[in-house]
Amino acid sequence: MSSSDDRRYMARALELAGRGLYTTTPNPRVGCVIVRDGAVVGEGWHERAGAPHAERNALAMAGAAARGATAYVTLEPCSHDGRTPPCAPALAEAGVARVVAAMRDPNPQVAGAGFTMLERAGVRTECGTLEEDARELNIGFVQRMTQGRPWIRVKIAASLDGKTALDNGRSRWITGPEARRDGHAWRARACAVLTGIGTVRDDDPQLTVREVDTPRQPLRIVVDSRLETPPAARVLESGALIAAAVEDEGRSSALRARGAEIIVLANAGGKVELGALMRELGRRELNEVHVEAGYKLNGSLLREGLVDELLIYFAPHLIGDHARGMLDLPALEDLSGRHALEIRDVRRLGDDLRIIARPI
Amino acid sequence: MSSSDDRRYMARALELAGRGLYTTTPNPRVGCVIVRDGAVVGEGWHERAGAPHAERNALAMAGAAARGATAYVTLEPCSHDGRTPPCAPALAEAGVARVVAAMRDPNPQVAGAGFTMLERAGVRTECGTLEEDARELNIGFVQRMTQGRPWIRVKIAASLDGKTALDNGRSRWITGPEARRDGHAWRARACAVLTGIGTVRDDDPQLTVREVDTPRQPLRIVVDSRLETPPAARVLESGALIAAAVEDEGRSSALRARGAEIIVLANAGGKVELGALMRELGRRELNEVHVEAGYKLNGSLLREGLVDELLIYFAPHLIGDHARGMLDLPALEDLSGRHALEIRDVRRLGDDLRIIARPI
Repeated sequence: MSSSDDRRYMARALELAGRGLYTTTPNPRVGCVIVRDGAVVGEGWHERAGAPHAERNALAMAGAAARGATAYVTLEPCSHDGRTPPCAPALAEAGVARVVAAMRDPNPQVAGAGFTMLERAGVRTECGTLEEDARELNIGFVQRMTQGRPWIRVKIAASLDGKTALDNGRSRWITGPEARRDGHAWRARACAVLTGIGTVRDDDPQLTVREVDTPRQPLRIVVDSRLETPPAARVLESGALIAAAVEDEGRSSALRARGAEIIVLANAGGKVELGALMRELGRRELNEVHVEAGYKLNGSLLREGLVDELLIYFAPHLIGDHARGMLDLPALEDLSGRHALEIRDVRRLGDDLRIIARPI
Repeated sequence: MSSSDDRRYMARALELAGRGLYTTTPNPRVGCVIVRDGAVVGEGWHERAGAPHAERNALAMAGAAARGATAYVTLEPCSHDGRTPPCAPALAEAGVARVVAAMRDPNPQVAGAGFTMLERAGVRTECGTLEEDARELNIGFVQRMTQGRPWIRVKIAASLDGKTALDNGRSRWITGPEARRDGHAWRARACAVLTGIGTVRDDDPQLTVREVDTPRQPLRIVVDSRLETPPAARVLESGALIAAAVEDEGRSSALRARGAEIIVLANAGGKVELGALMRELGRRELNEVHVEAGYKLNGSLLREGLVDELLIYFAPHLIGDHARGMLDLPALEDLSGRHALEIRDVRRLGDDLRIIARPI
């Protein structure tokens, strides 16, 4: 049972961790607060891979004041040498008396090793303060460490009657500025923005982050079974990964000349094997994949159990049943075949409505 | 500019008025609070047509204390003889010094006459305190008085991807108990629950109020162009109005034998002329019509400008694009043809989500 002081300092550590939202990938977002005698003596967060970890930054700020202090850290301190030296011994060497972590390292092969190292060095440890918040902040990292693939978040913009495009494919929605900016913030935190060839053809989107400030652009990924992405497509402008189901040297060369990387992952039906693609993205250390695709790819992802979260923007309009919906799924014979969700967040954004839901 | 005291007493008067939510039809819901020297000396509300008006009840409670008092009333006091004697002279005779009303009588032929009568009797009058709340409480009455037809509220229960029924017509949703109860409360306040022949055939609904206590059941109305309602349909169990586009003595007799009234209002296409039906319902003094129909009738109502409000319950499920949507509308060539809405309220009800929106 954590005290209200513990929760308050951990909330601050989470706030600091959030400053790395757009930059830490493939590393997790981590924040650290060092408190001695009821005063914050050190604060730090991890900014980007290769830069010091949150604990290091907080220890540097605290200096000698770390002796006898409590360190609040949003993730179990690391015990292993990575691109930077491990944090658990550094905390012990600085004389920190107690370490409160929000959650264990989600990597099942290393979970707990940081705590063990600290305890052996005489540092008291606790774990679980604001754990759910910490887990949510790094949900992609957790997913990759535990499932070997990224967290897949599917963004859908629809009219209130669930329509995402007219029957002729037109789908340039006039969502309000708040919803647009919010959508770009979700892109910015992702490691990649993924779409399908249908969307590339219909809308020719850039899929870059523009409405929020970020020093990093996510990778762009196109699921394009037959390598039909036009070499002039805007999605290729600053490099993209194309997942195909066919080899085609001519088309591939033209796309590679535009800076695209092509990987071929075919299933028996001649389409991109989406599960294999996601595992490959996991191997490439992608934590969060943000999908902005049409109803066909959305439906395929859902059918294959590859939708972890839905981010739905409802614009205050009605289009009618002739238009395209959110997900192309096989017709159901009865309602027991429907996909159950948990609605986790509902928010008004200007005139629009945003719903976050997860399959359960 | 009303004072905070004025608003507080009017809020109480509106609360009292709300007690008549299920019963006053065809009359408006009205509440009255009488205040003298900072103390409430009388309260009343209108319970049902034929029973005393709110002002009468409040005056009866106040007795001699009404002299020199302020009366807060949610609607301009009536000046004309109806089934009960008019309230404006009664307030003046009781010695009320000031009348604060939330809104004028919406009937353009009488609006202001109550105030005039009061002023001529030496009573000060003010109007407009919490006017929007008062208007919303009696939105059907206002609509009928100003437009000659009821307020039409269309209830839709859908999956989060906007599906209201499977392709085979199945549409027994497992919405949670909170959403179901809420839906029955909206039925209870309506003068009629209207559906289409498709829903009668697919679901055989009763369309009665069951989940909330009410002494009054709304009229049931079936839009049934070709008189195809089965005589055994449950909607007929306690009397219904069937709007048809054909005369058919055989079918009509069978339905009349079940207690149904049949009106024939055909348009050129051989369907029920919905605008004429709504005008007829206005003539019959129906204030609010609650629609629970399928996508075809919903679409027809929207196309004909006969949807004033949408009451959408989203269940946390995905069904996929083969299923039926909310509204059958002609395919659009471009997005400028979409129907714009204003989202007015968003609420979680158990696991479900309720959205109230109005066409703008």
